[in-house]
Amino acid sequence: MASPVTRSLIVLLFVGAATGPVRSQQAGAVVSPEIMADNRATFRVRAPNAKDVLLALEGTGRIPLVSDGSGVWSVTTPPLQPDYYAYSFIVDGVAIVDPANPVTRPNLLNQQSVVYIPGASPLPWETRPVPRGTIHHHFYRSRVAGDERDFYVYTPPGYDARARKRYPVLYLQHGYSGDARGWLAGGPANVILDNLIADGRAEPMLLVMSLGYGLPNFVRRGDPDLRVLKDNYDRFKEALLTEVIPLVERHYRVATDRNSRAMAGLSMGGAEALYVGLNTLDRFAWVGSFSAGGMLEDYAATFPALSGEANRQLRLLWIACGTDDPLVGANRKFREWLMSQGVDFTAIETPGMHTWMVWRRNLIAFVPLLFKPVSSKR
Amino acid sequence: MASPVTRSLIVLLFVGAATGPVRSQQAGAVVSPEIMADNRATFRVRAPNAKDVLLALEGTGRIPLVSDGSGVWSVTTPPLQPDYYAYSFIVDGVAIVDPANPVTRPNLLNQQSVVYIPGASPLPWETRPVPRGTIHHHFYRSRVAGDERDFYVYTPPGYDARARKRYPVLYLQHGYSGDARGWLAGGPANVILDNLIADGRAEPMLLVMSLGYGLPNFVRRGDPDLRVLKDNYDRFKEALLTEVIPLVERHYRVATDRNSRAMAGLSMGGAEALYVGLNTLDRFAWVGSFSAGGMLEDYAATFPALSGEANRQLRLLWIACGTDDPLVGANRKFREWLMSQGVDFTAIETPGMHTWMVWRRNLIAFVPLLFKPVSSKR
Repeated sequence: MASPVTRSLIVLLFVGAATGPVRSQQAGAVVSPEIMADNRATFRVRAPNAKDVLLALEGTGRIPLVSDGSGVWSVTTPPLQPDYYAYSFIVDGVAIVDPANPVTRPNLLNQQSVVYIPGASPLPWETRPVPRGTIHHHFYRSRVAGDERDFYVYTPPGYDARARKRYPVLYLQHGYSGDARGWLAGGPANVILDNLIADGRAEPMLLVMSLGYGLPNFVRRGDPDLRVLKDNYDRFKEALLTEVIPLVERHYRVATDRNSRAMAGLSMGGAEALYVGLNTLDRFAWVGSFSAGGMLEDYAATFPALSGEANRQLRLLWIACGTDDPLVGANRKFREWLMSQGVDFTAIETPGMHTWMVWRRNLIAFVPLLFKPVSSKR
Repeated sequence: MASPVTRSLIVLLFVGAATGPVRSQQAGAVVSPEIMADNRATFRVRAPNAKDVLLALEGTGRIPLVSDGSGVWSVTTPPLQPDYYAYSFIVDGVAIVDPANPVTRPNLLNQQSVVYIPGASPLPWETRPVPRGTIHHHFYRSRVAGDERDFYVYTPPGYDARARKRYPVLYLQHGYSGDARGWLAGGPANVILDNLIADGRAEPMLLVMSLGYGLPNFVRRGDPDLRVLKDNYDRFKEALLTEVIPLVERHYRVATDRNSRAMAGLSMGGAEALYVGLNTLDRFAWVGSFSAGGMLEDYAATFPALSGEANRQLRLLWIACGTDDPLVGANRKFREWLMSQGVDFTAIETPGMHTWMVWRRNLIAFVPLLFKPVSSKR
């Protein structure tokens, strides 16, 4: 008969084995990714019969892996800048997440694994021993979209529903194929805000992250035509203005004047921030777009009332794009149109592609500009 | 020059393509899973050079897929009972999530894909048009564990931090290899509570779901010896009692008497609910274990003060296990020991294995029993 010690362990291990295929206990399990002291990373995957295995690494492109002859493919990168990197393996043409890595970034089209290369000193997106905010996940039935949907609210450290203070709000949108979790998984926006607030670089504020599609199952519909694309944006706008914002303002201690509302987003969410923000300047005084994409390009029809008059209302219009982003041309073109209309803005171009490396740095640069007293208008 | 319509679409699609390998646009992309009207499900995966592909389907075991000769493997199940099913493909021995399915269940060892087979009428875990509760995600530094960790709090519909009402709390633990998200991803516990409360079957209550490891990176340590296992449980208990519960009771309108505190969990979390609950009856009047596993089997040493005296304090001790769960024998053995000590309990055995099908039904049966007035003791 096994000793009590042995039996306990058998029982515990059995539990793991019973709930599914436990990867770490598989014969020939690999370690992946493995981070070296000099910031190189080795990626490994078992694929005994594959003929072609690539690593798709965020911000880098595709790198071939080499088989060791026993079924394990691997590649070691050059030293990587400290940051989060999403990646997939592409095994004989099929993209998969890393079977050995439990950390993934959710996405409606292309879930990816995530590896973190830590920095030598705390970086703005790294958890530090500072007061932490809280994330609230709300569920509601959308009359506008006709579905059950959700949004997330970040409340800053010290937020107290019973106190008198009212906070400003940044409405922050994910990109195409993401969902309401996008900025929490990709930023992480809550950690960035915790750190900026702890350092006195940002006003304590709420973040609201809602689902960026006005039509149900928009991503699964496949390629939209222009009419569907516009309908999607219009319903998104209506859901945000008539459902999400009223819910937030009913449940949280937030200021409801236009100087206390900002809107920003990345990629499709950047196009949405421009579309909603610049068309409802009575509601938003601060607008930011990070690598805006999927814009309705008939700008005069998209922003029918926008003119130099907006400069009196806009506290900040901040338009950013990575210089290696294929969308940088479209963003420059939009900025030219704004100039032709006499609308002031801040143009930001930073190194980088259409990646979270760019967007988390955009957020870190953008948030400290928000909700300053009126006297400090740029 | 392309028309504005065409250019808009090009830009939008480019965004998708630039953020990663977009699966639905890959040549030869497959649809998986596909649910038929009669509840059969077809699972498909492209693996052109694989020699052996299996489906590991929760509650069912492993089913071989067949190649169509062009690189696509598939299998169609018999009609499935309406429920959530976790699954993986095992490609030449390596478990992977379904590349075509964005829905996964997080896990520190074996992330799996999830398919939902809907029911003909609303099932207790399906979203219905009823008032919805909210999920709050808290972050804190644990002095006991020495790491940054998190917990989730579900507040029921109508919860108001400014109202006078105080709510009871169920502390609900995940299993080995899961994390604090476990019951939200696997239940979903919030939807189950929404529905039970809407139907008047459960008291409005808070759920608190905390990380079930007392040692940092417990799962990644590999197989623990008994000393480490016990240290892990002791630190978990201390973190719950001295960190999580005080934080919850400071931030939420909750009742703090023992009749208003319950603790339950699945698998390792069931062992933890028994270990914490039965050793701190001054704090908990309601204890539930679902398929408890990884228990410290020297029961007399594990529960040194437990005797028939506990019957005066325990409002409910509810011990459940699936009849096809390999842990059912260990659970029966523990129940025998409780009987030998004169401790009353409710024994529940239901059809099923070590799966979420069993645990979500356990939760649905357990929650309505909680927080009844004293006069209705079973």
